[in-house]
Amino acid sequence: MIHFCVQCGQAVDYRIPEGDERPRAVCTACGFIQYENPKLVVGCVAEWEGRVLLCRRAIEPRAGLWTLPAGFMENGESTAAAAVRETLEEAGAQTELFDLFALIDIPEISQVHLFYRGRLVDGRHTPGCESLETALFSEAEIPWEALAFHSVHLCLDDYFAARRKQDFSLCRAVLHHVHTAPCAK
Amino acid sequence: MIHFCVQCGQAVDYRIPEGDERPRAVCTACGFIQYENPKLVVGCVAEWEGRVLLCRRAIEPRAGLWTLPAGFMENGESTAAAAVRETLEEAGAQTELFDLFALIDIPEISQVHLFYRGRLVDGRHTPGCESLETALFSEAEIPWEALAFHSVHLCLDDYFAARRKQDFSLCRAVLHHVHTAPCAK
Repeated sequence: MIHFCVQCGQAVDYRIPEGDERPRAVCTACGFIQYENPKLVVGCVAEWEGRVLLCRRAIEPRAGLWTLPAGFMENGESTAAAAVRETLEEAGAQTELFDLFALIDIPEISQVHLFYRGRLVDGRHTPGCESLETALFSEAEIPWEALAFHSVHLCLDDYFAARRKQDFSLCRAVLHHVHTAPCAK
Repeated sequence: MIHFCVQCGQAVDYRIPEGDERPRAVCTACGFIQYENPKLVVGCVAEWEGRVLLCRRAIEPRAGLWTLPAGFMENGESTAAAAVRETLEEAGAQTELFDLFALIDIPEISQVHLFYRGRLVDGRHTPGCESLETALFSEAEIPWEALAFHSVHLCLDDYFAARRKQDFSLCRAVLHHVHTAPCAK
């Protein structure tokens, strides 16, 4: 929720601008319209010798649970660059990306999650500031009951199914809840 | 560029918050951090009897030039819902979507463009407020020299190539300029 104008600091009012169909934060002083739009979260399913890299979260939300390396895309980068950067930041791992594997919409929180497929360049990984630990898991070893996010659960599930079929065509889904349920924390 | 805090209306300062690596707009009074992230533009390559629906833009940027129906994704919707909504708003057309066809990164303007494949439900279309006219084009009829955006040019080019091969696997690209060049307006 926006209360003040980013341009002039005066109060905003939520109203539908002329020619628009939705309420926007419109400045009561200078008229500047501040749009609010969905955010992209981008990550990577990176393999090394058949096992997939996961991170155990050091920060909220869902501290202590496991996730694929992923995070908010930054201005000025591509989606693939974001996936590589997040894998380096959270798991200390250099990755070579293949194609986009999953696009998961989560409209309730206005997020779109993208996961690329990739491989570790040299097998090395080490936890970054936002991770307690990093580890490689075979399909049988994945801590399904301790995954942090529903999108990660879905992506991994589809990834192993795709790998069995050797068909990595895009997996696309709309999710209506964010966290795995029940919370396994 | 953000000058004032959306929470309290006081001045912000761009600095690197603790534990971060990039300058953010941090409020000098309440400390609120306002993140700025890329935006998603979502649209549709919709066919009717083998021809593709385009809109001629009534608004800037690139007024008078042709584009695929597309626009900024809104909070609370899925990417597919955004593609359907934009096609209805800009071209008055009901669409049935197939899969995602293109993901085009444009890091210089912090945008990601997504185009779904689809078909018109009943072949009807009519310009919305943001369009001067709408029309269906065969591949030979596409006004290549009068397309508004580089991403639309690339998407259409790849779409017809994919249609010839009947292989609609995801087309992915990073573009470094937004407008078609030279400007054909």
